[in-house]
Amino acid sequence: MYNQLGVIGCGLMGGSFALAMKKAGLVRRVVGYSKSPSTTDTARRMGVIDIAAESALLAVSGSDIVLVAVPVAATESTFKAIRHLVRADVLLMDVGSTKSDVVDAAKRALGKQFPSFVPAHPIAGKESAGVQHADASLYQGRQVILTPLEQTRPEMVQKATDVWSALGSQVLKMAPHHHDEAFAAVSHLPHLLAYAYFSSVARQPSGRDFLSLAGPGFRDFTRIAASDPTIWRDILMANKQDLLTQSQRFREVLDQMEQAIRQGDAHALETMIRQASEGRAQWQAGAPAAPPSKSK
Amino acid sequence: MYNQLGVIGCGLMGGSFALAMKKAGLVRRVVGYSKSPSTTDTARRMGVIDIAAESALLAVSGSDIVLVAVPVAATESTFKAIRHLVRADVLLMDVGSTKSDVVDAAKRALGKQFPSFVPAHPIAGKESAGVQHADASLYQGRQVILTPLEQTRPEMVQKATDVWSALGSQVLKMAPHHHDEAFAAVSHLPHLLAYAYFSSVARQPSGRDFLSLAGPGFRDFTRIAASDPTIWRDILMANKQDLLTQSQRFREVLDQMEQAIRQGDAHALETMIRQASEGRAQWQAGAPAAPPSKSK
Repeated sequence: MYNQLGVIGCGLMGGSFALAMKKAGLVRRVVGYSKSPSTTDTARRMGVIDIAAESALLAVSGSDIVLVAVPVAATESTFKAIRHLVRADVLLMDVGSTKSDVVDAAKRALGKQFPSFVPAHPIAGKESAGVQHADASLYQGRQVILTPLEQTRPEMVQKATDVWSALGSQVLKMAPHHHDEAFAAVSHLPHLLAYAYFSSVARQPSGRDFLSLAGPGFRDFTRIAASDPTIWRDILMANKQDLLTQSQRFREVLDQMEQAIRQGDAHALETMIRQASEGRAQWQAGAPAAPPSKSK
Repeated sequence: MYNQLGVIGCGLMGGSFALAMKKAGLVRRVVGYSKSPSTTDTARRMGVIDIAAESALLAVSGSDIVLVAVPVAATESTFKAIRHLVRADVLLMDVGSTKSDVVDAAKRALGKQFPSFVPAHPIAGKESAGVQHADASLYQGRQVILTPLEQTRPEMVQKATDVWSALGSQVLKMAPHHHDEAFAAVSHLPHLLAYAYFSSVARQPSGRDFLSLAGPGFRDFTRIAASDPTIWRDILMANKQDLLTQSQRFREVLDQMEQAIRQGDAHALETMIRQASEGRAQWQAGAPAAPPSKSK
């Protein structure tokens, strides 16, 4: 049981964490701070936080657990703002979708308090950002990746593991650069492609007419294209190298498929489609996919 | 009320049409034929069809309404096989996802019976193909595009409109080439991208590990990558020109976004993401999307 949770950034992720901690009976009191006073107000009126803090630093004051849930590009300035009140026994976590940049920012900003920081990435979210969509069950049944370093205090890693497990999440640990490589592939690239694809249709002279004909396949394929622009701008920028590497791999497969279409090579096209289709049909969240079948 | 429906191709689309026609009380008897005898057997055991025909031609014999629901590349041979029993008063329709190639095939194969043919494309489907997934409500609330030509008998177009409307579909009419242009954009390209994307991740040395970390965004983005390989091979081949044109447009937007990422131009990236995000948030199936907002 924690005495006080300090939430910096009372949006969807921070707000949902506060609600989940309260619902699980893991915290007595939640103090919250957001850059926008109207967000902090809404969070308090909704009962997501109990006390609105005037600054990030004041949200940390007296807290024994602190969650930083700001766009990743704001991580360093946030850590700088709070470092003087991060005591060695405070569990400090973030929820950022990229980890190498967050770890670097934490090293620079936190100095000797860096070992208290446990970098965390819960694989959960919605297209609808904002505290008004906060949900106590957002993290339930979801994976949470922790990327502790050698310097990170093992006691803090254990505390972080216990907290997320108590919220119903499945906790995994990996190195920050492995995290970023994997999420460039399975999350950041799909967002980039969905944004680019939706724009390419919408920008056409007949785009509006085309969009009026789109069906359920389009709906699901483009769902993530509605994701928050500020948050995703930061993520795509922060994980630039891995993202561009993944995009290059994608382009190579797209080239091969287009080549088959252009040349009328139905057999080659079907083989490639079949590998994808069988792999995807066997995929389940949280389970390794079967290796793609050989051509038949 | 029709006396006999002949279904050629008792898969998801043909089977669902048969079930829907029966449920709506629009047909007395359904005769079905599939290339694979086990499919026809399953369809009969499930009550999707009443009588299994030995050939496509025999499924047409005595039918006053005929639905051809085969992969688009098999359309011409199917029309050739049945043309001798397509009487002028038989309503003949297909369900193909491409229309120019189907219309050309019908012209060549049907000869003087071509005016009885009403090309149709119901915007409905599932990743799970096969008669075992047939569903009487598959077409309910969905759009159905008819692409009649000048030669098509208006009486048949009216009959087709009445049938689909009675099944709860919203009927639209357009020229075949307009249909193909629009669906290259909102359906065929997303399938190509989803196949290429899933393959590009799965083929990597760490692909299986990456896939085990993928979450709900990935799940929805790749849902259509599980679609039937034979059906989609044919569609992508049949609509080659429009598809490659759309892919080129997509690549141009992707290039622009990657350029912004590479150059660290956060403002340009955010502007592009914001246009997509706002456009997608406003999009609803069946309604024209709002024009993309100007940069802010």
